[in-house]
Amino acid sequence: MKNLIFLLDVDGVMTTGQFLYSKDGKDYKVFGPHDSDGLNLLKNKLAIKFISADKRGFSITKKRIVDDMGFELAHVYEQDRFDYVNKNYGFKNLIYMGDGYHDAKILKECMFGIAPNNARKEARYVADFVTGSNSGEGAVLDACLEIIRKYF
Amino acid sequence: MKNLIFLLDVDGVMTTGQFLYSKDGKDYKVFGPHDSDGLNLLKNKLAIKFISADKRGFSITKKRIVDDMGFELAHVYEQDRFDYVNKNYGFKNLIYMGDGYHDAKILKECMFGIAPNNARKEARYVADFVTGSNSGEGAVLDACLEIIRKYF
Amino acid sequence: MKNLIFLLDVDGVMTTGQFLYSKDGKDYKVFGPHDSDGLNLLKNKLAIKFISADKRGFSITKKRIVDDMGFELAHVYEQDRFDYVNKNYGFKNLIYMGDGYHDAKILKECMFGIAPNNARKEARYVADFVTGSNSGEGAVLDACLEIIRKYF
Amino acid sequence: MKNLIFLLDVDGVMTTGQFLYSKDGKDYKVFGPHDSDGLNLLKNKLAIKFISADKRGFSITKKRIVDDMGFELAHVYEQDRFDYVNKNYGFKNLIYMGDGYHDAKILKECMFGIAPNNARKEARYVADFVTGSNSGEGAVLDACLEIIRKYF
Repeated sequence: MKNLIFLLDVDGVMTTGQFLYSKDGKDYKVFGPHDSDGLNLLKNKLAIKFISADKRGFSITKKRIVDDMGFELAHVYEQDRFDYVNKNYGFKNLIYMGDGYHDAKILKECMFGIAPNNARKEARYVADFVTGSNSGEGAVLDACLEIIRKYF
Repeated sequence: MKNLIFLLDVDGVMTTGQFLYSKDGKDYKVFGPHDSDGLNLLKNKLAIKFISADKRGFSITKKRIVDDMGFELAHVYEQDRFDYVNKNYGFKNLIYMGDGYHDAKILKECMFGIAPNNARKEARYVADFVTGSNSGEGAVLDACLEIIRKYF
Repeated sequence: MKNLIFLLDVDGVMTTGQFLYSKDGKDYKVFGPHDSDGLNLLKNKLAIKFISADKRGFSITKKRIVDDMGFELAHVYEQDRFDYVNKNYGFKNLIYMGDGYHDAKILKECMFGIAPNNARKEARYVADFVTGSNSGEGAVLDACLEIIRKYF
Repeated sequence: MKNLIFLLDVDGVMTTGQFLYSKDGKDYKVFGPHDSDGLNLLKNKLAIKFISADKRGFSITKKRIVDDMGFELAHVYEQDRFDYVNKNYGFKNLIYMGDGYHDAKILKECMFGIAPNNARKEARYVADFVTGSNSGEGAVLDACLEIIRKYF
């Protein structure tokens, strides 16, 4: 399956979705265990890419996803996300993992849609696979193991 | 419904209610995902305003609610809150969302009272609507979707 | 009931029990909502005092309990706690709230022993009252309301 | 039982497994209550040692485990862990506590394998004992009490 793409939202998928705010703004995000184990099992089998709509916390996201884990990351606003995905990847070979209200449309359209256990119900209802674990507690490892089971 | 007001408490509604303390004091609050999506869906339909009783963490609250999200925020102590709301908004066109022991009185009196799933039982028992999600995990998006369903 | 004392452990009672560690050490503790509402309802009715066994995080605890909330706080190691309580307060008029393995002995001996819902089972089994809420999520307000119901 | 070794993974065993990321990187880990009480009950009965695969957060782990708690800690990558354990301790007298996908192999092989309640299912399925508490909420105290019950 050479042309498969695994595209993941970051907040609420790789993190608990929560932000620590100080008087200076959004300073911290909460990433969880197990997910890098999952991405390591998968990274030689297909293309793995990340998108995030979070502008204020983008430097935090970039530090973790790009600098420390070595993956590609694009900033795409929620309202532009469907068109961005359509134009850059298409939906035919796309595995997408997202947790938000606006992710539902992409999860429905893509080849294989994955939502964390604690995703918005709007996302869970249209996903092909809902992980056993919450985001920030291993949801991405669950997703990676299911992708391996299903496609490899 | 031109004159509808949606007034929200911040701590325990937009946040998990928890504070991170260092030896220098209250440094962080934990805000959650999804809620800004909900407020964006609603903000052109009615007036959205916030109140907070937290003095020590007010600069954190202001950074998030006023500077970053662009909403109005007033500091009102718990004991003054009922009178403040009565004097400034009245209860007839008021949708109120709160989670605390002292919010129960306002939730009971207002047109439509909303409590997060993890609110104090004193608040939940008198609320007209209890969200499916906990605060800091999407309770405000739940509230916004219910307001749209009910009034728009 | 003039001579009643309400003595509370801090970590795992007023906090979730968790510590945020950086490479510099124990920097943050997580305090929760509702508890100061409860202590305010109670503080004119009986004496409220705190103890903590945590040495490394004592300046954090002191900032919250003494400087910001205005209560008395003593540092007492776990192994000395039973004797300290016996010597300073006795058990006859003591309401004690604790969550740990070593608190069980005091909870058993005191007039009225309270454990948070998420306390160690060793503490919960011997407590006279287990709160509905977890520590850091309102357990102390639960305790205060029960004390008012029972003694005032 | 003089030659017993109790070897523990750190992240997801002594911590919740979660990391707080800022734009500067991995700044905080979340340690929990009760576990130091458990290790104190056990430390004169057998050898207690820790390993961690986390390179970026190693200085945080070291601060807590070595500097503040006084235990030995080794950095061993996940892929090298099985061989490291085999070479340094053997499996015959080894009590091992781990929570991850790659810990399953060691948990299966060792004399007594322990997994926290919120460990990966791959670890829980092969463990001899699954704690009642989650990691960062007292899982290690549960483990210590079970070891005392079983071996001392």
